Amino acid sequence: MKIEILGSPLPNIPFEERPANCSDVMWRYSKNPIISRHQVRGGNSIFNSAVVPFKDGFAGVFRIDDQGLAMTLHAGFSSDGITWDIREEAIQFKNLYGDCGKYTGGYDPRVVFIEDRYYIVWCNCHNGSTVALGYTFDFQEFFQLPNAFPPFNRNGVLFPEKINGHYALLNRPSDNWHTPYGNIFYAESPDLKFWGMHREVMKTVQGSWQECKIGAGPIPIKTSEGWLLFYHGVVERCNGFVYSFGAALLDLNEPWKVIARGRQYLLSPQMPYECVGDVQNVTFPCAALCDAQTGRIAVYYGCADTVTGLAFCRADEVIDFIRRDSVPYCK
Amino acid sequence: MKIEILGSPLPNIPFEERPANCSDVMWRYSKNPIISRHQVRGGNSIFNSAVVPFKDGFAGVFRIDDQGLAMTLHAGFSSDGITWDIREEAIQFKNLYGDCGKYTGGYDPRVVFIEDRYYIVWCNCHNGSTVALGYTFDFQEFFQLPNAFPPFNRNGVLFPEKINGHYALLNRPSDNWHTPYGNIFYAESPDLKFWGMHREVMKTVQGSWQECKIGAGPIPIKTSEGWLLFYHGVVERCNGFVYSFGAALLDLNEPWKVIARGRQYLLSPQMPYECVGDVQNVTFPCAALCDAQTGRIAVYYGCADTVTGLAFCRADEVIDFIRRDSVPYCK
Amino acid sequence: MKIEILGSPLPNIPFEERPANCSDVMWRYSKNPIISRHQVRGGNSIFNSAVVPFKDGFAGVFRIDDQGLAMTLHAGFSSDGITWDIREEAIQFKNLYGDCGKYTGGYDPRVVFIEDRYYIVWCNCHNGSTVALGYTFDFQEFFQLPNAFPPFNRNGVLFPEKINGHYALLNRPSDNWHTPYGNIFYAESPDLKFWGMHREVMKTVQGSWQECKIGAGPIPIKTSEGWLLFYHGVVERCNGFVYSFGAALLDLNEPWKVIARGRQYLLSPQMPYECVGDVQNVTFPCAALCDAQTGRIAVYYGCADTVTGLAFCRADEVIDFIRRDSVPYCK
Amino acid sequence: MKIEILGSPLPNIPFEERPANCSDVMWRYSKNPIISRHQVRGGNSIFNSAVVPFKDGFAGVFRIDDQGLAMTLHAGFSSDGITWDIREEAIQFKNLYGDCGKYTGGYDPRVVFIEDRYYIVWCNCHNGSTVALGYTFDFQEFFQLPNAFPPFNRNGVLFPEKINGHYALLNRPSDNWHTPYGNIFYAESPDLKFWGMHREVMKTVQGSWQECKIGAGPIPIKTSEGWLLFYHGVVERCNGFVYSFGAALLDLNEPWKVIARGRQYLLSPQMPYECVGDVQNVTFPCAALCDAQTGRIAVYYGCADTVTGLAFCRADEVIDFIRRDSVPYCK
Amino acid sequence: MKIEILGSPLPNIPFEERPANCSDVMWRYSKNPIISRHQVRGGNSIFNSAVVPFKDGFAGVFRIDDQGLAMTLHAGFSSDGITWDIREEAIQFKNLYGDCGKYTGGYDPRVVFIEDRYYIVWCNCHNGSTVALGYTFDFQEFFQLPNAFPPFNRNGVLFPEKINGHYALLNRPSDNWHTPYGNIFYAESPDLKFWGMHREVMKTVQGSWQECKIGAGPIPIKTSEGWLLFYHGVVERCNGFVYSFGAALLDLNEPWKVIARGRQYLLSPQMPYECVGDVQNVTFPCAALCDAQTGRIAVYYGCADTVTGLAFCRADEVIDFIRRDSVPYCK
Amino acid sequence: MKIEILGSPLPNIPFEERPANCSDVMWRYSKNPIISRHQVRGGNSIFNSAVVPFKDGFAGVFRIDDQGLAMTLHAGFSSDGITWDIREEAIQFKNLYGDCGKYTGGYDPRVVFIEDRYYIVWCNCHNGSTVALGYTFDFQEFFQLPNAFPPFNRNGVLFPEKINGHYALLNRPSDNWHTPYGNIFYAESPDLKFWGMHREVMKTVQGSWQECKIGAGPIPIKTSEGWLLFYHGVVERCNGFVYSFGAALLDLNEPWKVIARGRQYLLSPQMPYECVGDVQNVTFPCAALCDAQTGRIAVYYGCADTVTGLAFCRADEVIDFIRRDSVPYCK
Repeated sequence: MKIEILGSPLPNIPFEERPANCSDVMWRYSKNPIISRHQVRGGNSIFNSAVVPFKDGFAGVFRIDDQGLAMTLHAGFSSDGITWDIREEAIQFKNLYGDCGKYTGGYDPRVVFIEDRYYIVWCNCHNGSTVALGYTFDFQEFFQLPNAFPPFNRNGVLFPEKINGHYALLNRPSDNWHTPYGNIFYAESPDLKFWGMHREVMKTVQGSWQECKIGAGPIPIKTSEGWLLFYHGVVERCNGFVYSFGAALLDLNEPWKVIARGRQYLLSPQMPYECVGDVQNVTFPCAALCDAQTGRIAVYYGCADTVTGLAFCRADEVIDFIRRDSVPYCK
Repeated sequence: MKIEILGSPLPNIPFEERPANCSDVMWRYSKNPIISRHQVRGGNSIFNSAVVPFKDGFAGVFRIDDQGLAMTLHAGFSSDGITWDIREEAIQFKNLYGDCGKYTGGYDPRVVFIEDRYYIVWCNCHNGSTVALGYTFDFQEFFQLPNAFPPFNRNGVLFPEKINGHYALLNRPSDNWHTPYGNIFYAESPDLKFWGMHREVMKTVQGSWQECKIGAGPIPIKTSEGWLLFYHGVVERCNGFVYSFGAALLDLNEPWKVIARGRQYLLSPQMPYECVGDVQNVTFPCAALCDAQTGRIAVYYGCADTVTGLAFCRADEVIDFIRRDSVPYCK
Repeated sequence: MKIEILGSPLPNIPFEERPANCSDVMWRYSKNPIISRHQVRGGNSIFNSAVVPFKDGFAGVFRIDDQGLAMTLHAGFSSDGITWDIREEAIQFKNLYGDCGKYTGGYDPRVVFIEDRYYIVWCNCHNGSTVALGYTFDFQEFFQLPNAFPPFNRNGVLFPEKINGHYALLNRPSDNWHTPYGNIFYAESPDLKFWGMHREVMKTVQGSWQECKIGAGPIPIKTSEGWLLFYHGVVERCNGFVYSFGAALLDLNEPWKVIARGRQYLLSPQMPYECVGDVQNVTFPCAALCDAQTGRIAVYYGCADTVTGLAFCRADEVIDFIRRDSVPYCK
Repeated sequence: MKIEILGSPLPNIPFEERPANCSDVMWRYSKNPIISRHQVRGGNSIFNSAVVPFKDGFAGVFRIDDQGLAMTLHAGFSSDGITWDIREEAIQFKNLYGDCGKYTGGYDPRVVFIEDRYYIVWCNCHNGSTVALGYTFDFQEFFQLPNAFPPFNRNGVLFPEKINGHYALLNRPSDNWHTPYGNIFYAESPDLKFWGMHREVMKTVQGSWQECKIGAGPIPIKTSEGWLLFYHGVVERCNGFVYSFGAALLDLNEPWKVIARGRQYLLSPQMPYECVGDVQNVTFPCAALCDAQTGRIAVYYGCADTVTGLAFCRADEVIDFIRRDSVPYCK
Repeated sequence: MKIEILGSPLPNIPFEERPANCSDVMWRYSKNPIISRHQVRGGNSIFNSAVVPFKDGFAGVFRIDDQGLAMTLHAGFSSDGITWDIREEAIQFKNLYGDCGKYTGGYDPRVVFIEDRYYIVWCNCHNGSTVALGYTFDFQEFFQLPNAFPPFNRNGVLFPEKINGHYALLNRPSDNWHTPYGNIFYAESPDLKFWGMHREVMKTVQGSWQECKIGAGPIPIKTSEGWLLFYHGVVERCNGFVYSFGAALLDLNEPWKVIARGRQYLLSPQMPYECVGDVQNVTFPCAALCDAQTGRIAVYYGCADTVTGLAFCRADEVIDFIRRDSVPYCK
Repeated sequence: MKIEILGSPLPNIPFEERPANCSDVMWRYSKNPIISRHQVRGGNSIFNSAVVPFKDGFAGVFRIDDQGLAMTLHAGFSSDGITWDIREEAIQFKNLYGDCGKYTGGYDPRVVFIEDRYYIVWCNCHNGSTVALGYTFDFQEFFQLPNAFPPFNRNGVLFPEKINGHYALLNRPSDNWHTPYGNIFYAESPDLKFWGMHREVMKTVQGSWQECKIGAGPIPIKTSEGWLLFYHGVVERCNGFVYSFGAALLDLNEPWKVIARGRQYLLSPQMPYECVGDVQNVTFPCAALCDAQTGRIAVYYGCADTVTGLAFCRADEVIDFIRRDSVPYCK
């Protein structure tokens, strides 16, 4: 039976075919990085950012660290998904719940359309990093919901539809610093204000590229085989962390159950712009665009915490890949 | 105007008057510790435990570390609050929500009666320490609710009534080890399953006994002046942590607002059974019994992570004490 | 079938019967500690020491830290195993193999009689701590063999007879400091000079008193059920390490196979002389005397790295104890 | 030739003869501790304090940590050196040099009379711990001089007279926390405002009680053999630091040259009040009274960072002791 | 009013105009690095070095780490400030004050002309890193003064003239290793031998490129607006420290008072020779040449602890830049 | 007298003459790296590998980390020593001694021909990293011997002939992680099963490129002057470890005695492929081919834990180099 993405066709996503002599499941865009560190005036770096289809083209929420290293979120727009017009002014969230969620700088956003609006989930720094939520209808005006959890938590990723009637959120418990541990959890909410039903989804895997900590990446992609989740994994080598990313397949109805999980990474830091920068050896995916008709997927990922890259794959090949060489004990 | 505890008279709580030559606001029971480390067969230690009025006397949930250092919770009963009959068999929770809250050992319970039943909040070890909840009607049969948060979180303490229509829970974010930081947060829930509206209540105070981390202790006591909260504070001295405890006064309607907070501790590890044991220099309060008629309060506290002690005070004197010498910047 | 110690009767070992109201498998000598820190002039502490039957009474090798904290080994003699005459002058080893084993201070000795002489195994500090070996015929003159391993290794313990024709040595890999990890290994030697056939015997057990590191204690005792091994286990609590000890049963012919291993400790630091001293919360067994006729065993253990204590048990009861509540996955 | 203290007779210093069965060079006062933790109202502990002869009796500057753990200095007076009347109000220094030395809490004072006034040297917390200086004529009014060094420095100890025309100050470089290293240095000043000519006096000694860090204690005592310096030494044991103290002899004219330095400590934490308290295992000398006529010396030392003890010795015996067993390489 | 450098014209400093499409306040020399790691035979790296106008051209003191990684200082000469003739033999200082300042390898020199000679300030390794001083008249013969402070201190930078009659020295307290903290202090001296009047000048700024530690860079430049100070700031990212640099304006008469301080960096490691080398991600300025007539400034900075780069700016633009976006709380 | 390699001519080793303008003792191959990270399908990196002359050409054992970061060993063959045919299937060792040496992944192999077969020594991960041994006759079939030591030990390197009738093995004690210390030791064995006679050969050298840890590299080369040993040394710089390598000369008959040891490195990470990769700044030699007739040597070394490089030198020049500038205190 054919492996299919369950969703809308999106023929205009950025895509390049696999290079001739390449047999990798995932390959990089030939003109990477697509967003340079200085693309926005006053910026030190633009990375770990999220995009979605919007109108005829695409919109996104971008993490910019300015030249004082303050972290802010910025809206951006693109017709082809490659050339981006990113706003110089940071997003100002209209805070709907007072002390329960103040925007005081944010990082690592994810964006997803659910029902009638675009939800943004990011890591907020108010009283300790935790998962913040907000929404917009138009990428002009933004509203902030209460934080999902008490600190410390990062890498909050919403599913693109309700699961069993509840909003569903992947997340990764952490600490007040460069967390040296961490597994992926699942939480539910009836209303995006109150969260519960916490379950552990995946643990780290000893002796591997995902040994130290893992975190959900782009919004999960619905396929005929389950939710396709790209996620980053971290290993601590002799001279520091290395952030690679791979993929897993989660049950469609009980997404806290792992069907398959790739033992191998899909992409690791190997190019100069991934290995050299403010933080060496980081490839960190935060968004994916996919075309249900062809199975083509474009993954946006931060490189060395400095610039933004693009990589491509096909849903069926990725699912084959993680099924063929799966982590023996997935959960 | 008179400072009063708002609640029921409870004339039979354990109490001793302040010794003749003592001017401290809080004083120890003369026959401390009231529960020895070996009181229950096979036990290594009994400490950080919680008691409530129950029928004609008192009931409680006790933390016992057995001689393999497995941590379990045990029901206990007492007619005078001093001599306790603690069950040798550990509590078995009937798990109502599957993976969302499994009991795999627990520690540092708190117990409170709300509406029609006794709720137990403790620290659960399933997939990382976090705040677990359960309830009982009779201290015979126990039921487990979902965990309140993803890990890591400790020192969950429920308010004894709903605040603005929601259950209210103090808690302390932590990490996967002997957390070296931590402030007290506040969360709300409409149903004890989903939690949100997280607010920070109190931060640590540099250069003090509460410099390193703080955590709520007994169930807050409702008074005419606000919620009286006993809480522990930790300072890291040259040879390790020292756990003392003090008190604060929280706004009755918005308990995340601090009205007063004692700059000085009420009790610190000074007696041999508080300074010597499995963990040196720990006094850790988990429960209080109070008599609204007289303002008398009896605080149960763990000593050196080994035994259980009892200390006494009067509500009005404690509130005077923390108002007289309050942390300048409370929040 | 009766559980028996396989060996000689030794009716004159020190022993006290279990106190009336005590149900513990192991109990302390009523006049502990038997050796005070100042018993030898210029000494700061005497602990972690080893004794054997010798002539009509007993002899031993004692660790003394002097008042400069230099660590030296000293011979001692006793007629009753309780009152010890310990030599003020440190043992001088006649070095038989030059650079391969120099005595530059030593600690934590074990002593065992094999065939025709008394072997001493200790931790040597020459170019990094490792397992040193030596022997004496008379406790007057001592000879030093080559170190068994390159650094870092501690807690070397010889079996009292050859196993399958080879000398057999338990040991614990470590590092150059207060090692925060460590499992017990087994090595063989045809000649006490060359060692090999390294096998892992026991790992640490998470969430227990033996979570952090473990190390063999007294010379294993041959019984009808297998080798009875007392060993120390360490857990890191909030304010430091706690050293307790328990027991395991090893296969008689393949001692690297664990038959049973107590989930609970036999003795943990609970008395003031075990909890307070140069290093808090340490009970560290290094020697045992046993009477095959009665099954009585006397264990010598260091207390708080300061003084030496004595505890008693019976072989059959200990073996019952560790079989009744054994670590599920022993190896 | 007779070893003599060069100074005034001071027959009324507190002193007890060596107990009958004791052969130690230094022995404790039989009624230790002389100052309890609660002697001053609101105090958590009184320790690491300094005394000098004053009028007919003695005066001192005492470190008190209050029950919020704020550190303050307090004047005290005594007629016998044992019973102390310590002022409840903290010393307020009149700051003579603005930002160059602000009193914001202080600890570990030393006091010395030079020429016409009493100088106090302590550890100040303003912008990082460093050596602060002040003076008084009457222990009623106190004046503050500029800090001697930029942070981080502790254990500043003035010589009781100028050396080669300059004030001379021992000191110990440190860091912003519980420093895990540190040697003793010497500095000079023409005017107590500007300091220079820094020389290293003593390093730590590996494998000993003074392995980790050392710091000058009481004001050096002038003797016929050189300056007699009591100083603390620290070793890091398995469960934390142990603070003992010993002595060294410095050249009279070039005090940065060490003539002899005891390999053994004179006193280490062995009594309950030294081993148990806010910081376990600390004996920390800050002052000495001596009678030149008889050579008797009384040393005041902090115990477990909680209370204050007194110990006694004779100058000639101490000098013999450190000469007999001296650290081979003293500098 | 015009912003001016107060000083002499120096038309021959190296300078390139800002590239056409660049709007940065500071820009790099187009042929960076100007000094390669192997320029001097036997050298591993040449960086963190200082230059001054000298005769018709320029002279300097250069840090060279040889291929054994021994650190030495070397004189160098240049006619254009870009091509340098660096002496292969290390500078030998004539030690004027014995033990108070011995040259045993040095690093990170600064050079300044005051009155009649060139002063060199560097970090000396004798008995712990601290600020060493010396002088030369001709860059042939060098003399060493006493160290300014006891260890540990780094980044000593002299003002180019006396302030209120005293020599003035910026400095940065540190520790015995890769210090993870540190603010800039100010000290005075009447004679360059004795130092005092220590004041804190600037603290680190949380959540910024200067979050972890800061240290003065080149000799401060006197301007009509105050002392213009370039200084490095360090942030600890996920994979290590990043050393950038920015600028501040200090009061002319009370230079410990900060008038303005840039929230943003002027230059951060972004070029391959700044990001890759012995220490990744380091830009570390140690010298500046400036032309008072035109306001042009050339900054010499170490790159990745491996090579030396050059960057340019204009005094008025820098001062505008730091005034426009200044750290809110400067001190 | 002429310095000579004692051995066979090997004219076909890969070699390039020193470049014209280069005066270094060791120089890199102009087309480095010779083995790319992706040369073998599914591989993440190929480095730290060993080669030997084999038949007409060369054979080797290669460390490959696959794209899951599992570490495996692979046989490879080459006619010119530069272009390698590496087997995609990992080596499967026939385990001859059960639990005493199981292959569960391995790294950093060395290969040497002794008497009749090729021995492989590598680092095995079974129950903690330690030195594993095996052999092959044909690089098709491999047999595994018992591990040489209990964990933790790395960098085991066999001498190419017996010394005084015993096999001889250099090794480096380590710990269970990225060991931050370590000296080189020497062990002997009569039979490659039992090891003993441990001696320390070389310590680290403070303030140098070999300050932190050192480890033997290729099989020692027999010369007229002694055993020529290339070894890596590690220094911890501000942003991590730097692995360089140098050489030493060991006594022919007592190889634990150091005759000369270079103070300077021969090669340090300076090329992009050495500085950038999975682990920055690593050059790690594991093999050398040498031609006794000409003294030419080709060294194979891992680069950045990612690829494999080749460097050249001449035996006589290296020996001159390390004699001319030798570490003063070699042992």
